[in-house]
Amino acid sequence: MINRLTSEERASQLADLRGWQAVAGRDAIQRHFRFADFNEAFGFMTRVAIKAQEMNHHPEWFNVYNRVEITLSTHEADGLTSRDIELARFIDSIAPGPLSA
Amino acid sequence: MINRLTSEERASQLADLRGWQAVAGRDAIQRHFRFADFNEAFGFMTRVAIKAQEMNHHPEWFNVYNRVEITLSTHEADGLTSRDIELARFIDSIAPGPLSA
Repeated sequence: MINRLTSEERASQLADLRGWQAVAGRDAIQRHFRFADFNEAFGFMTRVAIKAQEMNHHPEWFNVYNRVEITLSTHEADGLTSRDIELARFIDSIAPGPLSA
Repeated sequence: MINRLTSEERASQLADLRGWQAVAGRDAIQRHFRFADFNEAFGFMTRVAIKAQEMNHHPEWFNVYNRVEITLSTHEADGLTSRDIELARFIDSIAPGPLSA
């Protein structure tokens, strides 16, 4: 079993992430990405997919052409946990800089 | 430029597809898929992605764990075209049988 982040953990750990926003009505975070084209977007998704499978912690995500929207939350805890932070950090580490938004 | 399907084309071509539904408020079709796990779901998505890139016609899609929801429409025609039918046929050809829904 894994526990939701405490208030203190949220304050410190969410501050280190880049561009993630709270999702209305859910204990989850979301970030939007924009790439040059579909090839880049799906290549990025594939890297995230491999990491997610390795962690056994999977994103909720939407893609159309060069846009990707990723939502992270931990189903079994019904909210944000350290697994979401870990996956978000990996995603940030491979996300493009200037084009993301 | 590509034109939206005529009424006659819709009647004949949509009837050949498996499990695709009209999307409310848009000239688009959607199908939901369920797989054994994330590995199978993302493997399926990867096959669709490669076909989509080859066609230069891309899906709108959502995935969480073993579920995939695909929406097809042609942006430049603002509705359904023969490209959507072609991609849907490919998707149907690689989709799992009994588990899909």
